Amino acid sequence: MSEQYTIGLDFGTSSVRALIVRLSDGAEIGTGIFDYPHGEAGVLLDSSDPHLARQHPQDYLVGAEKTILAALEEAKHNDATFSSEMVLGIGVDTTGSSPMPVDAQGRALCESESDLAAFVWLWKDHTSTAEAAEITALAHKIRPHYIAKYGGVYSSEWYWAKLLHALRVAPMVMAKAADWVEIQDWIPAQLSGKTTSLTRGICAAGHKGLYHPSWGFPDDEFLEQLHPELKRFAAKLRTEKVAHAGTAAGHLTPEWAEKLGLQAGIPIAVGAFDAHLGAVGAGITTGTLVKAIGTSTCDIMVAPLEKSLPDIPGLCGITPEAVIPNHYSLEAGQSAVGDLLAWWTDWVKAGDHTELTRAASLLKAGESGLLALDWNNGNRTILVNQNLSGLILGQNLYTRPEEIYRALIEATAFGARVIIERIEEYGVPIERIVACGGIAEKNSLFMQIYADVLGKPIFVSRSAQTCALGSAVAAAVVCGAYPSFEAAQAVMTGVKETAYHPNPDSSKVYERLFVLYKTLHDAFGTDKNPPVSTVMQELLEIREDSRRG
Amino acid sequence: MSEQYTIGLDFGTSSVRALIVRLSDGAEIGTGIFDYPHGEAGVLLDSSDPHLARQHPQDYLVGAEKTILAALEEAKHNDATFSSEMVLGIGVDTTGSSPMPVDAQGRALCESESDLAAFVWLWKDHTSTAEAAEITALAHKIRPHYIAKYGGVYSSEWYWAKLLHALRVAPMVMAKAADWVEIQDWIPAQLSGKTTSLTRGICAAGHKGLYHPSWGFPDDEFLEQLHPELKRFAAKLRTEKVAHAGTAAGHLTPEWAEKLGLQAGIPIAVGAFDAHLGAVGAGITTGTLVKAIGTSTCDIMVAPLEKSLPDIPGLCGITPEAVIPNHYSLEAGQSAVGDLLAWWTDWVKAGDHTELTRAASLLKAGESGLLALDWNNGNRTILVNQNLSGLILGQNLYTRPEEIYRALIEATAFGARVIIERIEEYGVPIERIVACGGIAEKNSLFMQIYADVLGKPIFVSRSAQTCALGSAVAAAVVCGAYPSFEAAQAVMTGVKETAYHPNPDSSKVYERLFVLYKTLHDAFGTDKNPPVSTVMQELLEIREDSRRG
Repeated sequence: MSEQYTIGLDFGTSSVRALIVRLSDGAEIGTGIFDYPHGEAGVLLDSSDPHLARQHPQDYLVGAEKTILAALEEAKHNDATFSSEMVLGIGVDTTGSSPMPVDAQGRALCESESDLAAFVWLWKDHTSTAEAAEITALAHKIRPHYIAKYGGVYSSEWYWAKLLHALRVAPMVMAKAADWVEIQDWIPAQLSGKTTSLTRGICAAGHKGLYHPSWGFPDDEFLEQLHPELKRFAAKLRTEKVAHAGTAAGHLTPEWAEKLGLQAGIPIAVGAFDAHLGAVGAGITTGTLVKAIGTSTCDIMVAPLEKSLPDIPGLCGITPEAVIPNHYSLEAGQSAVGDLLAWWTDWVKAGDHTELTRAASLLKAGESGLLALDWNNGNRTILVNQNLSGLILGQNLYTRPEEIYRALIEATAFGARVIIERIEEYGVPIERIVACGGIAEKNSLFMQIYADVLGKPIFVSRSAQTCALGSAVAAAVVCGAYPSFEAAQAVMTGVKETAYHPNPDSSKVYERLFVLYKTLHDAFGTDKNPPVSTVMQELLEIREDSRRG
Repeated sequence: MSEQYTIGLDFGTSSVRALIVRLSDGAEIGTGIFDYPHGEAGVLLDSSDPHLARQHPQDYLVGAEKTILAALEEAKHNDATFSSEMVLGIGVDTTGSSPMPVDAQGRALCESESDLAAFVWLWKDHTSTAEAAEITALAHKIRPHYIAKYGGVYSSEWYWAKLLHALRVAPMVMAKAADWVEIQDWIPAQLSGKTTSLTRGICAAGHKGLYHPSWGFPDDEFLEQLHPELKRFAAKLRTEKVAHAGTAAGHLTPEWAEKLGLQAGIPIAVGAFDAHLGAVGAGITTGTLVKAIGTSTCDIMVAPLEKSLPDIPGLCGITPEAVIPNHYSLEAGQSAVGDLLAWWTDWVKAGDHTELTRAASLLKAGESGLLALDWNNGNRTILVNQNLSGLILGQNLYTRPEEIYRALIEATAFGARVIIERIEEYGVPIERIVACGGIAEKNSLFMQIYADVLGKPIFVSRSAQTCALGSAVAAAVVCGAYPSFEAAQAVMTGVKETAYHPNPDSSKVYERLFVLYKTLHDAFGTDKNPPVSTVMQELLEIREDSRRG
């Protein structure tokens, strides 16, 4: 029997990647990457509003074509026995919640509208803060069970907040919108030609769209109180199927098949978020926390459906089957990780990553006397507050850029620890951490700091393209090559031999620093009002001890 | 009658300047500058201890010679009628407290010792924090009247803390030290050859050395409890005269006269701190606050001796005749102002001053959403705590370096306002502010922010070389050309026509930001524990209002 393959398509914030994966062993035999040509590194910005982040959907379709063609070419070059008929399916993951308005034919409104509201509202668009607060307040008042699944706070990054804000600021655009579609659903719909009646991925619907199998999408009475027009969009959603990524969203159209040189009719898996299928590609299973570390961070865990789960305050979402069928998925995340470092290198222009990482590697834990909060893009989990901002503390007149760079990395690690402590506090044990994403792959300083701060060994996904691999796993299930995600993962995924183990000396210092981080976290992010008057003094003491030690 | 001139010598942190001033109108007809060749911009650093800052005293003597020769040359070039016999005296100002150990002949110990403890302990050397705390504690216990004149806290920057620390860490050096001399006293002593029995300037003695006319230098019982060796240094001090800058420390030796081409025997004024004689050069008088804005900032005020003054908590010092005879001088200061901006440009390398100032000028008050504390070098007045550190808050992923640059300027202005409010609270009204120093001269953005934050018009000293001019004024009094400082100032000093007036819109925004600054100030710097949980949210609101307004 000849080898079989699937393609995983991974739509990130700045680029898309196609990956061709062999089903018998997970070998990645071809890949293609495409940087979105529109905007600033793929993001459409508005100089008068730093909260706005949009995207051009044309970049996805052009990107899908270019990357699949490039991947196929590379696969043929790498393996003479490979031919494109051996590709049995396509899986899709994207950023999210990244919804866009479309017309009745499923066409992007931005094809005919230049208003930025007609484009894709990228996950990190934070224009809808006021609307998120409204949704939160209303849900607490009349639909507490809705919001309990979202850690008690609805985020400005999510679907209904964005729709509501669009209704307020761009009524002309909204009048032309027949539907708002997450890009994770729009892309499979485009590839399979099912553009007017879509299958909605439960990943976005459940984690961002207030959908739950027990109640469906939010009800009209609830939406009416937010804005009369919202009901229209919910009505459209209710006519459609909600499914997990182990389901076919449709099948490749003859037009796309010809363009790509693939067989028409191969299944396209229902889309899911990058971090969720990334968790699949990293080999997620009960007891494993998968950390996808990129511009932002997404923490994913799964727990068997048969065991009931408490609602965990501050967690982004607990949803059935958003990652693996027959499992709950738990999602947490940090709004800025790679982006926080990129702020330092690209906006402050305090050095480049290579040089700063090298210099920061020479520092010991606590040696800089610095402490930072990782809130430059707000706090997604546990505080779920977009109106928080960054903080750097402890600098003297000789503080160097690499010291701040390291303090920013440490801040994200402390933020990660706050999340882990919260999850464990609610009875979900974390036995191992598997990291994936560009930073996990490339930056050993970063990974070691995480091991030291979290006090747990950290493994790295064997694949450097975990998200695309997870999409390929979904496609492998959808095309029938494997009976379950677990069966496909056992063959197609794994971790690298090298793991990061906590350094006891550093961990001891980070225990002390974490207490101070938590003090600042609670002082600026909660109403607990812990005193901060000794923080600067204690940082100096930690610094002195670190220099002596 | 031919014109008469004096020379002002101004020894700064990185360079020395000589200025030749015409007594009839204050015209500055010649100047010379010399950058100290030793160390990093004149400062000897120790890479293992960021608190250490020393200086090589040879740089002062070489600098005095080179700058006076250059100034004389320039004066002759500028004015054909000028000749060096018309120079009637020399005044000296320096940084401080910057003491150094000398041998029995008044020679710098570093001529024969390479230990950094044998050099000048520059004002911004902060190695003596623990010792300053000891002195503070002991004074509160057994000599409360000593410490009341220092705002209740003795600083690590000051004379006795530095001696005590040197006794602890460098006993071998201290065994060879016959005396510890402030450079404001050592330089006049060198020029006049009176190197073994010096006249001590009341400026350093009173503001840093625990000297007061009513009790003299600190008593043996007090010093004994700190360290038995300290008594030896106090005994030497007690054999000598303490005098104000309107007194001759001695007269130019024939050797120096020949080297400089000046007349032997012209008087050398008793030295004083740069900011103090800078206040004289800026035209200080009762009701005027003179702000010398440089690497750090010094605020000087005077009040008539006949009116009694309360002790003001947190103020660096209240001393009779340290600035002008027959007046108290009040001193306050901020530990990092120009240095704070230089940290951003030179250490973080986030841009250069010109480019950052231009970009920051385009921003409106509150528009960046940022707030900073100006404590990268601790807080000298009101908190008097060297163990405080810097803080920057409110940044997002698009915060630009010029926004932080502006926030740092604003932080120093808020710090200045805390000081002014404290002084006025204790019944010393401030009617006008005169700024001097490089930043006042060159950076109109900086000055406008100060006017807006302080809510008072700010004048700029007519002379760009206020300190050197003040030294020349002192020399004019000492040589008998004028009967008093007031009489000399009336002719030799003044302010520029252009003044900075508060912009009401900016002032309104800064009123709101100052409330938040004060919240952070009290949260991190005092035990008051004000809640900070709304600070980030309020900054966002101010930002939104500023962008709309």
